[in-house]
Amino acid sequence: MSRNVLARVHVGCARLLEGGFVAEIAVGDYRYTTESHLQRFIASILEKNGVRAEDAAIVGKVLTASDLRGIESHGAARLESYYVSRIRNKQLNPTPEVTVLQETPASLAVDGDNGLGHPVAYRTMQAIIEKAKSNGSAFGTVRSSNHFGIAGFYAMMALEHDMIGIASTNSVRYGAPTFGRSVMLGTNPLAFAIPSAVEPHFVFDFATTTVPRGKLEVYKRKELPLKDGWAIDADGHPTTDPDAALKGALLPLGGFGTEHGGHKGFGLGLLVDLLCGVLGGGAFANALPLPNSAPQSGAISHFFGAIRIDGFRDPSAFKQDVAAALTEFRESAKVPGAERIYVAGEIEYENTLKYRANGVPIHQKVWSTLEALAKEYSVDFFA
Amino acid sequence: MSRNVLARVHVGCARLLEGGFVAEIAVGDYRYTTESHLQRFIASILEKNGVRAEDAAIVGKVLTASDLRGIESHGAARLESYYVSRIRNKQLNPTPEVTVLQETPASLAVDGDNGLGHPVAYRTMQAIIEKAKSNGSAFGTVRSSNHFGIAGFYAMMALEHDMIGIASTNSVRYGAPTFGRSVMLGTNPLAFAIPSAVEPHFVFDFATTTVPRGKLEVYKRKELPLKDGWAIDADGHPTTDPDAALKGALLPLGGFGTEHGGHKGFGLGLLVDLLCGVLGGGAFANALPLPNSAPQSGAISHFFGAIRIDGFRDPSAFKQDVAAALTEFRESAKVPGAERIYVAGEIEYENTLKYRANGVPIHQKVWSTLEALAKEYSVDFFA
Repeated sequence: MSRNVLARVHVGCARLLEGGFVAEIAVGDYRYTTESHLQRFIASILEKNGVRAEDAAIVGKVLTASDLRGIESHGAARLESYYVSRIRNKQLNPTPEVTVLQETPASLAVDGDNGLGHPVAYRTMQAIIEKAKSNGSAFGTVRSSNHFGIAGFYAMMALEHDMIGIASTNSVRYGAPTFGRSVMLGTNPLAFAIPSAVEPHFVFDFATTTVPRGKLEVYKRKELPLKDGWAIDADGHPTTDPDAALKGALLPLGGFGTEHGGHKGFGLGLLVDLLCGVLGGGAFANALPLPNSAPQSGAISHFFGAIRIDGFRDPSAFKQDVAAALTEFRESAKVPGAERIYVAGEIEYENTLKYRANGVPIHQKVWSTLEALAKEYSVDFFA
Repeated sequence: MSRNVLARVHVGCARLLEGGFVAEIAVGDYRYTTESHLQRFIASILEKNGVRAEDAAIVGKVLTASDLRGIESHGAARLESYYVSRIRNKQLNPTPEVTVLQETPASLAVDGDNGLGHPVAYRTMQAIIEKAKSNGSAFGTVRSSNHFGIAGFYAMMALEHDMIGIASTNSVRYGAPTFGRSVMLGTNPLAFAIPSAVEPHFVFDFATTTVPRGKLEVYKRKELPLKDGWAIDADGHPTTDPDAALKGALLPLGGFGTEHGGHKGFGLGLLVDLLCGVLGGGAFANALPLPNSAPQSGAISHFFGAIRIDGFRDPSAFKQDVAAALTEFRESAKVPGAERIYVAGEIEYENTLKYRANGVPIHQKVWSTLEALAKEYSVDFFA
């Protein structure tokens, strides 16, 4: 296996395991379906759980886009574990009445009424894009929401409108601040999408912790020591022991202390909590739920933005220059053993092309949960 | 010395040395002046170099703010080395004719005509804030500019208007992309300022490389090995040898490869280059100058933004919640040995209070360069 392939697998795994829901997934052992089948199936199962058809279709679209991009942790793998189970447990409202808290030509603040995150996120980003068309730029917040899938999906909605798209969300708590040992920060992803004349566009979607919690679980199962800078134990000591880390906290991007820039990752995570939780008027800091805490409605908040490119330059010339910049980086000299340099969004774009041509891979373990749902709800399985 | 003080010094040094211009500064050996004396002195020297009085006053204000915040690398230390020397070498235009390239109610794109970065940055941020007052949010770009000091200064201009401020700049090249060994990325700082009901506000101003180049120079002088993840050598191998690193490249926040999130730091650095260089219509990627390259006019670009808080929530309630969030983090449980948790902007705020009360410290070596300038240009020295 060449270093290139290794690097690719490495980057892929980091994304695959973000969130930790398919931590048990091994290479191989995949079944395949199509984009439209998967979208319809997800929507059908949610409809059977009382979700409105138009909302269910949006969730189907967002989860399928995640699997298409190779981010399996945020796709169909979460249908049962995150969404259906929470509706059944009455932790999540299948028929929310979304309300507008505040609105101007440049802004929209809504309350998601503890519904699924995807529909309210999708519609808020749509509204923000419409506002930006007439206003030049616009921003939106959503509070009282739930997990919305991949942040990048919503940022990417701006691309076809020649706008820069921004999307972010706070999350349940997994991480500690720099020099702190309290678990009080989510993985708090930030996503930026910038259009290029030649695909892939720049789609930069990243968690502000160094690694996701799922990565600790994988290392535990494999009985491997963690890398420095990933986690602390419950007492706040840096640790490479997966068991100790799972009882402790994730570290911000940059790791422990300030030596490797951990205070920058902490700043990014806190920025996200201020833009989502505080600006959105929702929960923030210690008021956010812990992963295994009791049902807590409306705890998650999102932030969205869209900025028209033609306020600054001709969009065609801009997109040509973006393509040129991305090409310069991709084609620059590599470190020994590396064959490729990836820019943000490139691996996911290549996955999408491949999976559209050859089928969307669904791991056997996820496939089984889908089959069980199909049987339980008498829905045709990928038919 | 307690762990608290050590942690504090550590964070302080990271900032102190950002940029590497006062890399020789040791603890102690300081002289003291006042904010107004330093502002006036800097302005006088620049006026003697042909800079218009109103422009020189802005530079005095920005550089002094940097020293007041304890970011000595970006303050008076650069007056001779960065600004006066470049004007004398005809690398920088002391009397630029700034032109508007494009303007809408939501946007402003200007060309700085190779002048000092501070005046054009200050006026663009002022204009963006005015636009945001009527438009809800607004963004601006500047191309053909030069080093503008601390990004945080411009982001902070939004605070008193109950807006979120954003400022960023690309820079001369010091860093390599993930899996690459070409020096093609600046330190590319990003700054966000969010107002709090109780100072300090959230002022998050960070370079997107793990450490600044100046830190490598300090370690070389002290004959200390670098930390992992700071730099690569010219062949692209990770190195802890300062000499090899100085001939190589800085690594993005997160370090070498993807194991510690280096691809996230690379994504942030590239994001800045796209928002500044490409959106601004200026130079980007390999077209940016190297630190020691021949004079290259107009190579640096900036990006600014302002977003009104009252589009989403009552600003007073928002600022109360920001204060509550920052307090929660500051007061959370510490790791063993640490006495304080700092949120972004807190150390700089405390420095400002202290230096306003006790005088602004200027290192003896910098003081000597200022004394020499005073003599050369017959300007009263801090009188």
